[in-house]
Amino acid sequence: MEVEVGLIAALQAKLGADAVLTAETDMAGFVEDFRGRYKGRALCVAHPSSTEQVAFIVRQCAAHGVSVLPQGGNTSLCGGAVPRSAGPAPVIVSLARMRRIRALDAANRSMEVEAGCILKTVQDEAAAVNCLYPVSLGAEGSCQIGGTLSTNAGGTSVLRYGNTRDNVLGLEVVLADGSIWNGLRSLRKDNTGIDLKQVFIGAEGTLGIVTAATLKLHPLPTHHALAWFAPVSPEAALRVFGMFQTNCGSRLSAYELMNARQLQLVVERVSDRRNPLAETHAWHVLVELSDTRDGAEMEAILQRTLEEAAEADLIEDAIIAMSDAQRANLWEVRHSVTEANKGAGVGLTTDCSVPISAVPTFIDDATRAVHEIAPDLDVVIVGHMGDGNIHFIPMFSFSAWQALADAPSMGSALRRAVNDVAHRLGGSFSAEHGIGETGLVEMAHYKSSVELAAMRAIKQALDPNNLMNPGRLIP
Amino acid sequence: MEVEVGLIAALQAKLGADAVLTAETDMAGFVEDFRGRYKGRALCVAHPSSTEQVAFIVRQCAAHGVSVLPQGGNTSLCGGAVPRSAGPAPVIVSLARMRRIRALDAANRSMEVEAGCILKTVQDEAAAVNCLYPVSLGAEGSCQIGGTLSTNAGGTSVLRYGNTRDNVLGLEVVLADGSIWNGLRSLRKDNTGIDLKQVFIGAEGTLGIVTAATLKLHPLPTHHALAWFAPVSPEAALRVFGMFQTNCGSRLSAYELMNARQLQLVVERVSDRRNPLAETHAWHVLVELSDTRDGAEMEAILQRTLEEAAEADLIEDAIIAMSDAQRANLWEVRHSVTEANKGAGVGLTTDCSVPISAVPTFIDDATRAVHEIAPDLDVVIVGHMGDGNIHFIPMFSFSAWQALADAPSMGSALRRAVNDVAHRLGGSFSAEHGIGETGLVEMAHYKSSVELAAMRAIKQALDPNNLMNPGRLIP
Repeated sequence: MEVEVGLIAALQAKLGADAVLTAETDMAGFVEDFRGRYKGRALCVAHPSSTEQVAFIVRQCAAHGVSVLPQGGNTSLCGGAVPRSAGPAPVIVSLARMRRIRALDAANRSMEVEAGCILKTVQDEAAAVNCLYPVSLGAEGSCQIGGTLSTNAGGTSVLRYGNTRDNVLGLEVVLADGSIWNGLRSLRKDNTGIDLKQVFIGAEGTLGIVTAATLKLHPLPTHHALAWFAPVSPEAALRVFGMFQTNCGSRLSAYELMNARQLQLVVERVSDRRNPLAETHAWHVLVELSDTRDGAEMEAILQRTLEEAAEADLIEDAIIAMSDAQRANLWEVRHSVTEANKGAGVGLTTDCSVPISAVPTFIDDATRAVHEIAPDLDVVIVGHMGDGNIHFIPMFSFSAWQALADAPSMGSALRRAVNDVAHRLGGSFSAEHGIGETGLVEMAHYKSSVELAAMRAIKQALDPNNLMNPGRLIP
Repeated sequence: MEVEVGLIAALQAKLGADAVLTAETDMAGFVEDFRGRYKGRALCVAHPSSTEQVAFIVRQCAAHGVSVLPQGGNTSLCGGAVPRSAGPAPVIVSLARMRRIRALDAANRSMEVEAGCILKTVQDEAAAVNCLYPVSLGAEGSCQIGGTLSTNAGGTSVLRYGNTRDNVLGLEVVLADGSIWNGLRSLRKDNTGIDLKQVFIGAEGTLGIVTAATLKLHPLPTHHALAWFAPVSPEAALRVFGMFQTNCGSRLSAYELMNARQLQLVVERVSDRRNPLAETHAWHVLVELSDTRDGAEMEAILQRTLEEAAEADLIEDAIIAMSDAQRANLWEVRHSVTEANKGAGVGLTTDCSVPISAVPTFIDDATRAVHEIAPDLDVVIVGHMGDGNIHFIPMFSFSAWQALADAPSMGSALRRAVNDVAHRLGGSFSAEHGIGETGLVEMAHYKSSVELAAMRAIKQALDPNNLMNPGRLIP
């Protein structure tokens, strides 16, 4: 208690009283995740407005033996951004006040931003100078750059532009001892020792606090071509994907799959959403091409590839968007899945990736594995097929879930069954959501002892007193 | 001496006598680099033919307290692949016998290869199934995949496809304790803990021995459009680069700059090389577009962009290659620079990168800095302008070099002057060549104590007894 008082007083003296929240009510939005599934306790919530203040906080916490939890937009899907329910209460370091765009170099296609910048703001600032920051995901209106870096966020443009990791040139990080590492380089090539930034990207705040980053920008695509089609099967969707890669090269920027049940939920549960095709089909794909020029040519390639696929009996029906409004409508169907699924029942969301070539087998085998445990259970499937990332969601009605003798065990068993199929195919149980709170058991189950030992050694090397977001990421 | 005998006997018993070279003459090609600049001593050269044998060697070396130096094709430009001239002699582990293509999944665009595979072999195997492994560099006919991974090799396709790091999906590594980390995943998305492979890529064998990798492949471009033009200045070359990015998007795959002196050396010293343009110009750029389709359309974009640049008075002359033979000729001019420069004098090669927007300033300031030390000295400039990577080469005639009172000091002073300019512009002293032997002094000079401390902590964590290529990479 004395420790707490001394630490909080020191933080308030440095940051100002308004920048250090201690009242339960003030902290409520920071100690619980946005879906209300995870809740913990914090000593206080500190709002630094500079890197030096972050360093000060970390040094003070280190001196007092109190742990530190960095928080961005609090949009984690796996409880990674809020304190654990058990264990000592940490200081939450909210990066929300660090939201300056420090520099934008259009000729170098790079941008230096502070960790608290909202992803959407970064996208917009880049677009204003005809550049693209490609990372794009559902939470982009509220998630912060620091969070996307610390979780190596994925999203809908990974197929063409890679994950967040692939779009970072440099980092500024406050390390566990409170020193500041200035690695804010904006270079395409730099082979001078261990590439430190790679260690912090995706480390979920367990090795240090990312305070700023130099992001890689791309030429802004100005023309888009979009189609929605019904492949006869996931196997057919895979073959058509190969055709698109060959015909379109790097124009191919999205290849999203959903099953009939997923489309049905969107159409039934979200207003103004319709099946883009005239009839009901088992499988659906949204495909997008984009380029910095010549939209008509792209539509021609799109059409020719779909004709080629139809001639090979791989697709049942297809439409090409003929206007910006039609394009927006098709994307809205895809983007409505979270809303559609939310109240539709108890969905046991998984986040597996497998080699792209193994997606059809994954879907078959995971369906079979789920039905062995729960015969005839609804399965909702939606995913980034072009990345091999499939959200495979066994879904119970609320009444069926409540009728279960041991619902939590059923949930765990079904998730494990799906993850086992991915693992057998060389896949991952967490393609883009990260580990946070929920993934720790799977980490311990699936990772080799050699890999875990190496991760622990790096953690120990960079955070010897285990103060940075302890108990997370590495079991 | 007893240690040595026991260790060599153990290795010979396991690998076979023919796989463990101990005679001076047999080891000659392994202890000296291909240019004859660096030479050291080795206890023996071991040729494992499996990952298990590599692990055995490392365990034996660890037990005997002998250090380990992995070697690929021995094509390092900075002495990184051969033993140091001072210090205890290591066991050289040559990966040359580990050259299996373990798997090629065209639908997943991935390929699992052993570390000893020659880069050119990997490129050819990928091309045979219409895929591209994009890493391409001068030594590709003899360098090995393991070496390209451990040095994060750059080359001529970084502009479009990134460095080696960006084209790796998974790794297999023998760690310092002789355990084997199987990280051979072939996934586009995998957020499960610290991304360990990133630590070993570019670590130059100081953290472990890369024995195999899963590489990322791309759709094979089948159409190319190439031009050679004379920008009025580096500043103009930068502006034209922006035009190409906007007009061509991701088709833009090479943007290489050289100055008049570099072209002159190529034309004078390499047979069958000609100035591609009718007259002499101060600056030259080779630009290439590539795509999986439609060559005619690309040539039209190329032509239109060059016309746009000419109208803005940014270029003096240009030609577009009209045939495969012409394209090959233009690339040959670019690829002849090493041969041209080799016997032309004493060239103090540097390997700086700066933000692309800073390339003109870098060239101006570095030229001025060099001439302050050595007035009127020839300066040869060639580089990957699209990556901000410029090889700026102050060049003495042999006689002028021999006439210097203290040539080594002059060499160091000039290199440092060039590197200082890059550093002031936020650049790097080693864009693609790595650290090896020559870069250690610059590492100590330019890297912050915070960054070096973090690197040392990771090295200590993964190689606590400092047996993996000691004394390299981190000063």
